[in-house]
Amino acid sequence: MREEKNQNTDPYGFTLDRLSVPEKLEKLREVMSVNGVDAFVVYTADPHLSEYLPEKWREREWISGFTGSAGKVVISMDKAALWTDGRYFLQASKELLGSGIVLMKEGVGDTPGYLNWIANQIKPNGRVAVNTLAVSYADYAALENELKKNNIDVIDFPLLDQIWISRPEVPKNPIFVHPVKKAGKSVEEKLRVLREIMKRKEISAYVVSGLDEVAWLLNLRGKDVEANPVFLGYAIVWESHVVLFVEGSKLTYEAKEQMQKAGVEIRPYDEFYLYLKGISGENPLISYNTNQSIYNHLKNHNEVEIGNSPISLLKSQKNKTEIEGFRSAMLKDGVAMVSFLYWLKTKVGREEISEYSIREKLLFFRSGQEDFVGESFSSIVGYKENGAIIHYKANKTGSKEVKAEGTLLVDSGGQYLEGTTDITRTLALGNDVSTEFKRNYTLVLKGLISLSRAVFPKGTCGVQLDVLARLPLWREYKDYAHGTGHGVGSFLNVHEGPQNIRKDLNPQELLPGMVCSNEPGFYLDNRYGIRLENLMVVVPAEKSSFGDFYAFETLTLCPFSRDCIVKELLLEEEVRWLNDYHALCRKKLLSYLEGTVRAWFLNETEVI
Amino acid sequence: MREEKNQNTDPYGFTLDRLSVPEKLEKLREVMSVNGVDAFVVYTADPHLSEYLPEKWREREWISGFTGSAGKVVISMDKAALWTDGRYFLQASKELLGSGIVLMKEGVGDTPGYLNWIANQIKPNGRVAVNTLAVSYADYAALENELKKNNIDVIDFPLLDQIWISRPEVPKNPIFVHPVKKAGKSVEEKLRVLREIMKRKEISAYVVSGLDEVAWLLNLRGKDVEANPVFLGYAIVWESHVVLFVEGSKLTYEAKEQMQKAGVEIRPYDEFYLYLKGISGENPLISYNTNQSIYNHLKNHNEVEIGNSPISLLKSQKNKTEIEGFRSAMLKDGVAMVSFLYWLKTKVGREEISEYSIREKLLFFRSGQEDFVGESFSSIVGYKENGAIIHYKANKTGSKEVKAEGTLLVDSGGQYLEGTTDITRTLALGNDVSTEFKRNYTLVLKGLISLSRAVFPKGTCGVQLDVLARLPLWREYKDYAHGTGHGVGSFLNVHEGPQNIRKDLNPQELLPGMVCSNEPGFYLDNRYGIRLENLMVVVPAEKSSFGDFYAFETLTLCPFSRDCIVKELLLEEEVRWLNDYHALCRKKLLSYLEGTVRAWFLNETEVI
Repeated sequence: MREEKNQNTDPYGFTLDRLSVPEKLEKLREVMSVNGVDAFVVYTADPHLSEYLPEKWREREWISGFTGSAGKVVISMDKAALWTDGRYFLQASKELLGSGIVLMKEGVGDTPGYLNWIANQIKPNGRVAVNTLAVSYADYAALENELKKNNIDVIDFPLLDQIWISRPEVPKNPIFVHPVKKAGKSVEEKLRVLREIMKRKEISAYVVSGLDEVAWLLNLRGKDVEANPVFLGYAIVWESHVVLFVEGSKLTYEAKEQMQKAGVEIRPYDEFYLYLKGISGENPLISYNTNQSIYNHLKNHNEVEIGNSPISLLKSQKNKTEIEGFRSAMLKDGVAMVSFLYWLKTKVGREEISEYSIREKLLFFRSGQEDFVGESFSSIVGYKENGAIIHYKANKTGSKEVKAEGTLLVDSGGQYLEGTTDITRTLALGNDVSTEFKRNYTLVLKGLISLSRAVFPKGTCGVQLDVLARLPLWREYKDYAHGTGHGVGSFLNVHEGPQNIRKDLNPQELLPGMVCSNEPGFYLDNRYGIRLENLMVVVPAEKSSFGDFYAFETLTLCPFSRDCIVKELLLEEEVRWLNDYHALCRKKLLSYLEGTVRAWFLNETEVI
Repeated sequence: MREEKNQNTDPYGFTLDRLSVPEKLEKLREVMSVNGVDAFVVYTADPHLSEYLPEKWREREWISGFTGSAGKVVISMDKAALWTDGRYFLQASKELLGSGIVLMKEGVGDTPGYLNWIANQIKPNGRVAVNTLAVSYADYAALENELKKNNIDVIDFPLLDQIWISRPEVPKNPIFVHPVKKAGKSVEEKLRVLREIMKRKEISAYVVSGLDEVAWLLNLRGKDVEANPVFLGYAIVWESHVVLFVEGSKLTYEAKEQMQKAGVEIRPYDEFYLYLKGISGENPLISYNTNQSIYNHLKNHNEVEIGNSPISLLKSQKNKTEIEGFRSAMLKDGVAMVSFLYWLKTKVGREEISEYSIREKLLFFRSGQEDFVGESFSSIVGYKENGAIIHYKANKTGSKEVKAEGTLLVDSGGQYLEGTTDITRTLALGNDVSTEFKRNYTLVLKGLISLSRAVFPKGTCGVQLDVLARLPLWREYKDYAHGTGHGVGSFLNVHEGPQNIRKDLNPQELLPGMVCSNEPGFYLDNRYGIRLENLMVVVPAEKSSFGDFYAFETLTLCPFSRDCIVKELLLEEEVRWLNDYHALCRKKLLSYLEGTVRAWFLNETEVI
């Protein structure tokens, strides 16, 4: 699945409150006026800087009515504006209709940046308020630096608390143990390694606010956020003990026992900031991806170090047990995918099928697999021209009817107790697929194969390999406007860092055990979209006199669309890779398939 | 040619002074003692931070006796140590014998860094002296920051001035005009563009200290530094005029006239720092690659901005005239190279030939070409195992005899009035070349071809393409320990920035007009070295709905060693590129070749 910040996870358009946006803005301005605030900035963030926001934290959506996954709103006493990017121009302009909020198209012509806009709206000595719980350290620093130049003060003031009456509660879902036989390492082992790093860095405490970091460190999982098996919690790791801030009643008996054994003290989620206030004379580390409020609570009485998260790097390097878990999850996911593809290929044109019903069918096939927990993100099913909308989401009403013609892009994934999957396949549903489409499909496939086959020395970063997935397209002056690969958690978030494979100059080297997606694509607006995606894990390949060399092992098991491949465009070695890959799929999956699916699958995995 | 900082340019081992190193150290310590200095740090740098140091500025060499191109020496009252890298361990340990200076092997086990070493040697409240003219802003900042932690003061004190009696003078070579018909743009045009940038950045002056920047901006060339057609000078660009600090007597009449026309005031080279002292209330820009003394002279009375050099980026994007100049220089260089290769191939085993005599012969063939000025760097000619020494330099005495067997690596280049060349070819001199060598030669060639064929969108950086040159080697767990490509000046330095093609995350995108080397290699210690190098220029390829796409046009014209190529290892498209390239060489060079050379060349450029 394509990486994206803060996806909208409210598929049913559930309205958070009964007030209209203009009414909300009016109420907000009353509060601003009483408190001498000249402008209020609302970011898209929760206190854990999660990709998926719990309902309680959809402040930007609540105040503006805009439901997209990215954007910020600024409200002054007489104006209001929303900044968002190209993906959402159409949607935002519809949703903002009649709201009194102006749409600011980021990256278009001379749209002012929101910082400049504020500086121009507010007079010197003015005051701008922000909820520091819902803004990252980096965004806050940029805001403060820019406004300081104009003598405008930034204050911490969560104004919405006073007008958002029916704000949702923190979820109360159970928190359960992710057992060592799946995690590969005990909490004690993880803490030992983390504390070694802390000692080396002369850090007395690490403040863990990322939900997947808390879950990974403590071998716990939850259900508080859609698609991500995490729970709302903070942890502070000291040299001698750990404090976990979480609603204690949510922990299962086993979870409590595990915490006790590992020296983890449980305190209420609500007490976290109070506890922070009491810390002084320490050298705590917070990661760059921490909210501003945490920093504010610590900065005056401690020597705060801000750096990369040590947990993020530890978490990304999967151990043998976790890699085995991925392999096992891929078997199940492969069986579900093959069954789904067979169903679709044989039923399309004969049954009433829509993009939305395909999403449901996919979930149905995955649900039949043992230890399936849920989707790892909300499936992207784009028929014909909808396939070209990179973040397309088919809703229950109004989704496109799918017939035995044209092409379909399906990007989906599952959470299994032992691992997380993420796979994209693009299909021809009829015999009407153009030569041009097949050519582009084959170019994307060439990119995927080229990256899959990469061999590289220790020290290589994703940005050095990204070209391999793009070059076949670049040669024809084509490209795709998204990254090639993101990290994937082990029964955790489908998007994680610190590594990735993108054009950006991310200095994180690829290390053995890191799981990465490989997902080149090609999109023609209003016509079709192509994306092909496998997950891979970095494995040691050879130790030579020139150093340690690594390679990728492909984890995903599901055939590509043989009817879309132009064999003449493939190099001999690419044909060999594809045939080997299909042989692997056959070897691994065949025994789980029966009857007509089996026959179909045998044909799909035949050598080309 | 492989990029390298501060190459030794004293091939004859000319001793700069008659004192022995221990005698020099004794004298230095007397001066240190009188002045209350506890340690003195000597870097390898001149005030212009040049790659090639004029003799006057070989301070580190003079005080230590170590002639390598990289290293720093620290002398305390009772100890002295030299830090250098792996290329020079052997050479340094020989040259330091009996000097009283300890060799510190950088990057080996627990060798202390020089900053730590100083901090441990010198007591708090001690004083460390450095010649700020000969240290970069960045190195100085690191020194000062580290020592401040230990309460050690850093002072500017050019101690060697008091003991280096026979220090060479600033050279007095003529400075001549690089005419617009070769430079493509007049001084006035260049100043206009530069001043637009200055205005946009709100900069009132740009202090130009890099010798190639001064030469490029003012369309002047000189002969003060070996291989680089530059002269010792500084320039300060104001909004209304320019001040050039240079020995006026060195300028030719035409050069003086050109300066007058462009509003350039000439002042003596020696007055530069005095002039700097007089600047106040300005916003001058200095580039990161500026010596600390310049910064010191400006910082108290001005708002100094330190940033990327705007000239470096302008200079790197060659205009049409300059690219035509490169093409013309390549014709001449190609004819010289082909003649040389024919000579070598036919005479080896029949005449007495050494690595050194090959260097002379290369120079002889180039010297026969019109407008040839000199070598663009000192040729690297490595026979058999010497080819594996990446910075090998064959001296007059003791260079290896070359016979009709084994392999030879030749990396050389020329300065022509219209352009600069840099080419590497590796040859088999007999029929005894192993299958293994041919395989590795072909892998290196595959890398060169793959990078040559790259197509990429605007915004692509060198680090994204570097993998193309390495992947054929990586697949066999092989690699080379140097960059793939460096920028090349137009009748200027053979190494220039800001772009390059390396593993490093250099954020400079590749832009049309940038000339880059493409030089993958492979080295087996004590056996042989392979390097193949062409120069290329970035050219616009196509504007599609996916953006602007660029490609490389190869400039260098000289066939590869067909007797070393294993055709079966090449892809069809690689064979096609090679045959096309050889056809291009033939088309361009054939008419300049006669008799037996011509016949040999026809054979060498036949399709494979």
